[in-house]
Amino acid sequence: MPCKRKSSKSTSKKAPKYVYFFGGGKAEGNAGMRMLLGGKGANLAEMTNIGIPVPPGFTISTEVCAYYYKHGKKYPPTLKAEIEKNLAKLEKVMGKKFGDPNNPLLVSVRSGAPISMPGMMDTILNLGLNDETVEGLARRTNNPRFAYDAYRRFIQMFGNVVLGIEHSKFEHILEEVKKERGVTLDTELDVDALKEVVRRYKELIKQEKGFELPQDPRKQLEMAINAVFESWNNPRAITYRKLNEIPDDLGTAVNVQAMVFGNLGDNSGTGVAFTRDPSTGEKRFFGEFLINAQGEDVVAGIRTPEPIAELKKHMPKVYKQLEQVYKKLEKHYRDMQDIEFTVEDGKLYLLQTRTGKRTAKAAVKIAVDMVKEKLISKEEAILRVSPKQLDQLLHPMIAPNQELKKIAKGLPASPGAAVGQVVFHAEDAVNWANEGKKVVLVRQETSPEDVAGMAAAEGILTARGGMTSHAAVVGRGMGKCCVVGCGDITVYEDEKRFVTKDGIEVKEGDWISLDGNTGDVYLGQAKLIEPEIAGEFKTLMKWADELRVLGVRTNADTPHDAGVARSFGAEGIGLCRTEHMFFAEDRIPVVREMIIARDDKEALKKALDKLLPMQKGDFKEIFRVMKGLPVTIRLLDPPLHEFLPHTDEEMKALSEQIGVPFEKIKQAVIELHEFNPMLGHRGCRLGITYPEIYEMQAKAIFEAAAELIKEEKIKVEPEVMIPLVGHVKELELMKEVVVNAAKEVMDRYGVKIKYKVGTMIEVPRAAITADEIAREAEFFSFGTNDLTQMGCGFSRDDAGKFLPEYIEKGIYEKDPFVSLDQAGIGKMMEIAVEGGRSTRPDLKLGICGEHGGDPDTIEFCHKIGLNYVSCSPFRVPIARLAAAQAAVKEKMAKKASMARVKKTSRRRK
Amino acid sequence: MPCKRKSSKSTSKKAPKYVYFFGGGKAEGNAGMRMLLGGKGANLAEMTNIGIPVPPGFTISTEVCAYYYKHGKKYPPTLKAEIEKNLAKLEKVMGKKFGDPNNPLLVSVRSGAPISMPGMMDTILNLGLNDETVEGLARRTNNPRFAYDAYRRFIQMFGNVVLGIEHSKFEHILEEVKKERGVTLDTELDVDALKEVVRRYKELIKQEKGFELPQDPRKQLEMAINAVFESWNNPRAITYRKLNEIPDDLGTAVNVQAMVFGNLGDNSGTGVAFTRDPSTGEKRFFGEFLINAQGEDVVAGIRTPEPIAELKKHMPKVYKQLEQVYKKLEKHYRDMQDIEFTVEDGKLYLLQTRTGKRTAKAAVKIAVDMVKEKLISKEEAILRVSPKQLDQLLHPMIAPNQELKKIAKGLPASPGAAVGQVVFHAEDAVNWANEGKKVVLVRQETSPEDVAGMAAAEGILTARGGMTSHAAVVGRGMGKCCVVGCGDITVYEDEKRFVTKDGIEVKEGDWISLDGNTGDVYLGQAKLIEPEIAGEFKTLMKWADELRVLGVRTNADTPHDAGVARSFGAEGIGLCRTEHMFFAEDRIPVVREMIIARDDKEALKKALDKLLPMQKGDFKEIFRVMKGLPVTIRLLDPPLHEFLPHTDEEMKALSEQIGVPFEKIKQAVIELHEFNPMLGHRGCRLGITYPEIYEMQAKAIFEAAAELIKEEKIKVEPEVMIPLVGHVKELELMKEVVVNAAKEVMDRYGVKIKYKVGTMIEVPRAAITADEIAREAEFFSFGTNDLTQMGCGFSRDDAGKFLPEYIEKGIYEKDPFVSLDQAGIGKMMEIAVEGGRSTRPDLKLGICGEHGGDPDTIEFCHKIGLNYVSCSPFRVPIARLAAAQAAVKEKMAKKASMARVKKTSRRRK
Repeated sequence: MPCKRKSSKSTSKKAPKYVYFFGGGKAEGNAGMRMLLGGKGANLAEMTNIGIPVPPGFTISTEVCAYYYKHGKKYPPTLKAEIEKNLAKLEKVMGKKFGDPNNPLLVSVRSGAPISMPGMMDTILNLGLNDETVEGLARRTNNPRFAYDAYRRFIQMFGNVVLGIEHSKFEHILEEVKKERGVTLDTELDVDALKEVVRRYKELIKQEKGFELPQDPRKQLEMAINAVFESWNNPRAITYRKLNEIPDDLGTAVNVQAMVFGNLGDNSGTGVAFTRDPSTGEKRFFGEFLINAQGEDVVAGIRTPEPIAELKKHMPKVYKQLEQVYKKLEKHYRDMQDIEFTVEDGKLYLLQTRTGKRTAKAAVKIAVDMVKEKLISKEEAILRVSPKQLDQLLHPMIAPNQELKKIAKGLPASPGAAVGQVVFHAEDAVNWANEGKKVVLVRQETSPEDVAGMAAAEGILTARGGMTSHAAVVGRGMGKCCVVGCGDITVYEDEKRFVTKDGIEVKEGDWISLDGNTGDVYLGQAKLIEPEIAGEFKTLMKWADELRVLGVRTNADTPHDAGVARSFGAEGIGLCRTEHMFFAEDRIPVVREMIIARDDKEALKKALDKLLPMQKGDFKEIFRVMKGLPVTIRLLDPPLHEFLPHTDEEMKALSEQIGVPFEKIKQAVIELHEFNPMLGHRGCRLGITYPEIYEMQAKAIFEAAAELIKEEKIKVEPEVMIPLVGHVKELELMKEVVVNAAKEVMDRYGVKIKYKVGTMIEVPRAAITADEIAREAEFFSFGTNDLTQMGCGFSRDDAGKFLPEYIEKGIYEKDPFVSLDQAGIGKMMEIAVEGGRSTRPDLKLGICGEHGGDPDTIEFCHKIGLNYVSCSPFRVPIARLAAAQAAVKEKMAKKASMARVKKTSRRRK
Repeated sequence: MPCKRKSSKSTSKKAPKYVYFFGGGKAEGNAGMRMLLGGKGANLAEMTNIGIPVPPGFTISTEVCAYYYKHGKKYPPTLKAEIEKNLAKLEKVMGKKFGDPNNPLLVSVRSGAPISMPGMMDTILNLGLNDETVEGLARRTNNPRFAYDAYRRFIQMFGNVVLGIEHSKFEHILEEVKKERGVTLDTELDVDALKEVVRRYKELIKQEKGFELPQDPRKQLEMAINAVFESWNNPRAITYRKLNEIPDDLGTAVNVQAMVFGNLGDNSGTGVAFTRDPSTGEKRFFGEFLINAQGEDVVAGIRTPEPIAELKKHMPKVYKQLEQVYKKLEKHYRDMQDIEFTVEDGKLYLLQTRTGKRTAKAAVKIAVDMVKEKLISKEEAILRVSPKQLDQLLHPMIAPNQELKKIAKGLPASPGAAVGQVVFHAEDAVNWANEGKKVVLVRQETSPEDVAGMAAAEGILTARGGMTSHAAVVGRGMGKCCVVGCGDITVYEDEKRFVTKDGIEVKEGDWISLDGNTGDVYLGQAKLIEPEIAGEFKTLMKWADELRVLGVRTNADTPHDAGVARSFGAEGIGLCRTEHMFFAEDRIPVVREMIIARDDKEALKKALDKLLPMQKGDFKEIFRVMKGLPVTIRLLDPPLHEFLPHTDEEMKALSEQIGVPFEKIKQAVIELHEFNPMLGHRGCRLGITYPEIYEMQAKAIFEAAAELIKEEKIKVEPEVMIPLVGHVKELELMKEVVVNAAKEVMDRYGVKIKYKVGTMIEVPRAAITADEIAREAEFFSFGTNDLTQMGCGFSRDDAGKFLPEYIEKGIYEKDPFVSLDQAGIGKMMEIAVEGGRSTRPDLKLGICGEHGGDPDTIEFCHKIGLNYVSCSPFRVPIARLAAAQAAVKEKMAKKASMARVKKTSRRRK
């Protein structure tokens, strides 16, 4: 079917139609005529057609815009008459006359292009007011103050938008008058003052333009329409079109719509409402209204609105109509609507309808209910809930409506809320928690040695570090509320106190509360709401699992985390870091012994022999929890110096504990120092230098598996992951160590273990040479944290100094440590996926960086064909939903493109 | 023409020919029959054909090997008779008989595949000896000791290679006998002892194999031939073929060749010689000989050989023949030859000829001379000189033949030699040098603050750091002898002394000498040879410039370096680091002032206003030196903390110097600390945060250019380079700063400046998104140091802990900081080249990393289509030669592939 635009041109006999009326229950346009009427115009026509009482008006089509620019800024000769005809129709429908001094019809004039486009002229309200009609309006509304306020607003908008006088000049006058009258708020100006403002506004116009403000409403309208078309080619609009590749000849339409007023007496009013409860999702009409008031009165909060149900008593007929309208709207738009209405003289008008904002809980309930009501499909339900919002359902929250003293704000690194007494050292956190106290651990920043303290605390607050600092990553991993990078506070750990920028001092033992969703820090004990997983949530997750293609695993280092993740639906472990186990109190001395012995093969073996049964025990527990599901275990990754003590005192203590001379310990600390630990002797480089360590870890894994298979008949599927591989030969050598360990253990136990050996892809070189690496790797897991650090060349510990500015300046749209930098790091991943699968078509691909829990990244992972994503336990439901959304979006895109193909081929016939 | 192999099969009537004779002036094979006769066999035939007197013999073709494996390890029925026939011919040519107890013919048996292939059986010498013939040999040579030594060697080789008895068992017997006789060297064993060794060897064989050592020479030969064919399929050979993709059915040939002896009396002798002087390249026959001796006697050094010219007196006829032979060989092989010859009973035999090793000086002279002699083309001459060797010609060297006390060995980081008194601090180096003393600066490691001291020193020695550590990079840049990572010494900087691992203490003021070509450290003052650039060197460089396509620029930060580079043929500056200028004594306080003021716009501007004229002065000087040539200037790159003092004392001194409170300086030092400076707040990230700094630098550049153009009419072509760009938007923002500065300056001076703005490609993300970055960049310069660090994920300061092991284990073939990792980082460069040129076809591409002076990398850069390479001034001639070689190789490869195409198309007709 040829498009409307062409058709109107091809009607040969009649004069071309340029103006489309809407109102009185029907419209000349409809939703399909977006190109001709613009988005706004088409939507107003559509609402009118389905019987929604919107204030009537007419749309001047985009063709006029095209004509205007094609003909040297002249209008079609028939346009003026057509506008007159439509204006007459509007007067008739409204029962008011344009320029009538007693009951004036006022209109708004708005632009409206086929594609929403900032930069163009927006809105002129109250057009039709002049020195005479303003008095009529004052009488009609019985509110001279309202009338003059409307007039001065009109003059200001008209003067600025149509006449091009700087906005600040009007504001300046307003400020002057306020000063003269000794008031501070606009609303405090009385009618006299407003009249004075109007007088000075008009003076300003004369001064600036050399002519008076047009008093003739028709002249006002003509000038306003002209201003809209002119604004199509203002520099901001041109730039916007260039940036967004919008054709310059698309043109804009102009919407002229009647103004309606809710303050014309007790038969008038105004209100806002939601078609369902936006807080709980319950299916009930929800909102409030005011009799004899304008919309802004509801917002201003001078009068207290009444609940919407009360409207039934005041205006039973209107209420009934409103009920029909809201149901119709919800059905038409197939989603919960947020509506604004005005009743003018007993007549209901819908001023606005839009999809209503809602809590996560409501979002889930509404989506599931609407499927049950057969209003939407399961696929649509999946798309209705924002995965990011789901987080709210998985953590305690600060209860609303309580008085709290906010003392600082940091980065919301891990959601939830925490209330506790402040401690400044990890040990204290452990000790106090053991005494049954609730504590919040406050540190300058955290290090791996603080992990036990972090686990014991209700929440963590750090003064330094970004969204992927140690505290943030570990906090999220633990599902523990965490606020980081709180530059508002200065922490004196030794003195056990911190001071806010406002000088408030908080000492050990004082109570504070953290909001992990906002980053707010409060003094005292806030009340919390515990998370509640409603039945609808479960249903939605079930649908998500049916629809998604991507697997969802978890990053978990402990049986506890593994258990939580499994209860949240994780289908395996995508990243089990073995070094976290090394920090346990009973292990760390042995680990240190091993490190100090590293170049003495015999002593090294002795230390490793002590570690093996410990690691085996850990793995057994985790395998038991995850039984039947794959578990990816990453061999030792961090540089050895991370495990060593820092101060001389700690070294002396260690010397006594493990019986190694202090000097030897000190020497190891000095020798292992690195300038850039991120790019140092870590990951598989340790395995290359000390294959004994990897051998021990591999044996611990396979012995654990063998014992469970043999003794407990549990299915175990270990996937051994070699970290930081940059060159296929590294993997080749390390794989040999693992395969030999597996053989040895399987022979010794007489058991067959199904296992895989693969690698992290986290070094750019690995991504680029993935085709070679896949010769050895049975799986890849994208370590996008490090891939981002090395690929973009900034360490997450240091990037805090410039990254916020980078995001502010739009260099990166989002923090690349939170949401994957798809254009750069994502491109590397694509190269790796393509390369890896070209060598090994059945290569298993996953992601285990922090990004694995970010919905946008998950969609990207779906697109490039990964097999699974892996994320913190508390992000598993979010990932399941995001994965389902990605699959649904793809399906829909395919359907749409198929439809296009069909349409094209049909047209060709 | 069908290949020889097929042809021999297709001769239908006659029995197939399997054995090819060479000797008596002609051979049945030739150099073209490599597939059939193997490399060695074909070459022996070729030499025989051109009249070179090689010991005669015959080759059993590769077809026999194929037959052997095809027919279940059986030989062709006619083979035995054919071998007999050839053996008879050999006996006739040699005038000796196989197994003759009086004058036995002895032979060597060697494998020889068409492609040289380690892993196969190598050589059996002296075959034909047995208990009887050994006595005959003793009589004939009048040297029973020689005869029995030959016999025991034969048994050992035969026992090991043919009979498969472990080598160590023979060695064990030899050691036993030596012990019993109370001697330590093999040569000290007398004939009795050797007879005892032979007895025990034979006993061992009987014990191990159950049979006696075959006494029948024919049986020995048969078994040796069989062993060669068997070795074709030993595991080492199979693995080698698999790794190098050599077909398994290629097969090996067997060469049976007469043994000749130079110790049969005064009419015999042996010698080694070069066809030209390998040390100077002079065209004269050069070598030495011994009368009545075997080759090993020359090597053993028991008797002093005579100069080759003396041979004329002893054996005028032989000498004349030798002259003809060496000339023929040089002409045939078209290169200087290193030959071994033996005279047996007045008869000359060439045992070996190979391309002779030579010094750089000789290589250059020989190559240029041979072009003049019309022996080779200019292209061939270019390929004859190793670019790496050229280094020798550009620096002073330790004079040979002097007694030196070597006390330690480090990494040869920058070539040349240095002699000086030891100092331990940069300041001392400057002060002592000012007093006219020659010093060697010894440090644990160097930092940017040591640069002035390094410049003042003759050479630099550090205990830590690798081939691309600060000391190494700066040393090479300065063309200054530098030995780094010398773990043999412990440096006590505060105590002004170092101690070697052997306990030798060296104090301030002691003299040491460094050899930058070997890494050797000597106590005392070594004599040096100053570099000498002979006329031929200039000629060769001229030819290189005619042939190369790649431009060659230099990395230079000072007018002095720029001048040196220009005199060495640099065609511009590829990298001028602006921060090196910042470390000058008069600048650093101002730079520090700027850093401390960084967040106070006014104070920052004040400091920058002081720096601008200084930078402008620097640029003017450099532009003047490089006049007419492009100069690429990189804006500030290192993190700011690198410029700050480290100790409290230094901070206090600075506080007094610049009048800023100590606390403020200390705070800046703390705030600017970074965990991974490599991945920190540096490069264009500084420009984004403090655009004022880049603006100042840009203005300094353009003002310098404008003043030179205006006042001195000098052509200036600045190329402003933005470092560490990872995202196109960074470049977009920084380019704006530069372009605005350029406009402002050009307007102010009323001068037009031709300039470019481009970027380093050193962040992996930049390489991957080069298509986007090229929208803004007018040139790319690959910063392969950082690209390697980030791409491979190891910092060069830390990689010293594992990289040596990586290279040892073959993970990387070469140090990726020295020679580009082509498979990984090179692939990134290729992606960037392709991406960049897809957006901007005329994009100028260069490399300015350390790799720019590495010949292999230069060849790679030529292949991927860069426009130029840039390297340290002292590497410029090396780069010119390497670039020419790359162009010549490409031309030759193209010619060869064209020839293949022609051949194929002709065959198709």
